[in-house]
Amino acid sequence: MPHLVILYTGNLDAVCDMTALCRALADVMLLQRDESAKPVFPPGGVRVLAYPAPHHAVADGGAAGAAAGLGRDYGFVYLNLRMGRGRSAAVHAGVGRALEACAKDFFAPLLAARPVGVTLQIDEGPEVFDAKNSSLHPLFANRKRED
Amino acid sequence: MPHLVILYTGNLDAVCDMTALCRALADVMLLQRDESAKPVFPPGGVRVLAYPAPHHAVADGGAAGAAAGLGRDYGFVYLNLRMGRGRSAAVHAGVGRALEACAKDFFAPLLAARPVGVTLQIDEGPEVFDAKNSSLHPLFANRKRED
Amino acid sequence: MPHLVILYTGNLDAVCDMTALCRALADVMLLQRDESAKPVFPPGGVRVLAYPAPHHAVADGGAAGAAAGLGRDYGFVYLNLRMGRGRSAAVHAGVGRALEACAKDFFAPLLAARPVGVTLQIDEGPEVFDAKNSSLHPLFANRKRED
Repeated sequence: MPHLVILYTGNLDAVCDMTALCRALADVMLLQRDESAKPVFPPGGVRVLAYPAPHHAVADGGAAGAAAGLGRDYGFVYLNLRMGRGRSAAVHAGVGRALEACAKDFFAPLLAARPVGVTLQIDEGPEVFDAKNSSLHPLFANRKRED
Repeated sequence: MPHLVILYTGNLDAVCDMTALCRALADVMLLQRDESAKPVFPPGGVRVLAYPAPHHAVADGGAAGAAAGLGRDYGFVYLNLRMGRGRSAAVHAGVGRALEACAKDFFAPLLAARPVGVTLQIDEGPEVFDAKNSSLHPLFANRKRED
Repeated sequence: MPHLVILYTGNLDAVCDMTALCRALADVMLLQRDESAKPVFPPGGVRVLAYPAPHHAVADGGAAGAAAGLGRDYGFVYLNLRMGRGRSAAVHAGVGRALEACAKDFFAPLLAARPVGVTLQIDEGPEVFDAKNSSLHPLFANRKRED
């Protein structure tokens, strides 16, 4: 049940291809392996959703950026992966570092050019009820049997 | 303070009436009763919000769906109910099953027709601060007194 | 890594300036001080994002409001601040009360005029992985050195 939700200031839509970022992060998730070299995430369970915020306020609203000649138009991106309980700390760290590397690479030009913050956090689901219905998972179960 | 937030791939807006789903789930919440036959949720505290994601990536991006003749356009719906602490495990399970049945019924045609995943989870609020201001609750308090 | 996410029924966009609310809340966050009179939040880490929900259902859908002469068009606003672990309960309460006062003031005319619920909650981040990349923080570090 992993899913990665990206919340960001909507001003970044003009300068970033967020659909491409979603795909790049999903591909990173598909590649993750645990200590036994098994996939950390089932293919049918990899989902990345990104939401531009139409309203936002960041830091001091622009004064420090303007004073530094970097502009008032700050950006912020928050990436939050929620995964099921029970993975090891090593898996959390491995997945986190891989996703961070992907995000860092994607946002490098932006981070260099203007004031922007990129935060990635992983949570283990604390859910007290969990139900799944999927016509996605069978696609990959079938494919495995055909391989 | 229950509220149910639905995050989903925006491609589903073309094939689902998500406002109708919000109403159906709110009605299910209003009907829930605990072990003492009391409402689990106060009427004025039932809120369902649904957000289509304009950017998303799911599973392998479509290859397995296309190979299976089901199309590349995967969908994903994540329903997350956050409720106050202190309800019993039986209440969690009862509420979860009722909401799942509603969502499963709503998405049944979609689940049958194309690759889509529907996940429902309930969290108990871990908040360290909680404040409410409402002109909604009094509506129902008054109504009760009139009944 | 504090950030405040506001989820609300999209009908409120017609009657509230949510960008102004984001700025007002960010300013409140910038003013918070802990027991040692140090800022609770670093300036570059203050972010407020607000999301109108295009689909929603609240309470009974309007019947009680209509019966009370207050209209069927209920509103709901959920403000959720996620902050790093380790602050004291006094800091949680102080930040919560200050943000609540700001939100209450902002929504006072609305709360008086129509059925609307405003809930504010603070969570301490339960993250198992945390990574930050920022070209925002240095702005404020530099400014401090210049002062």
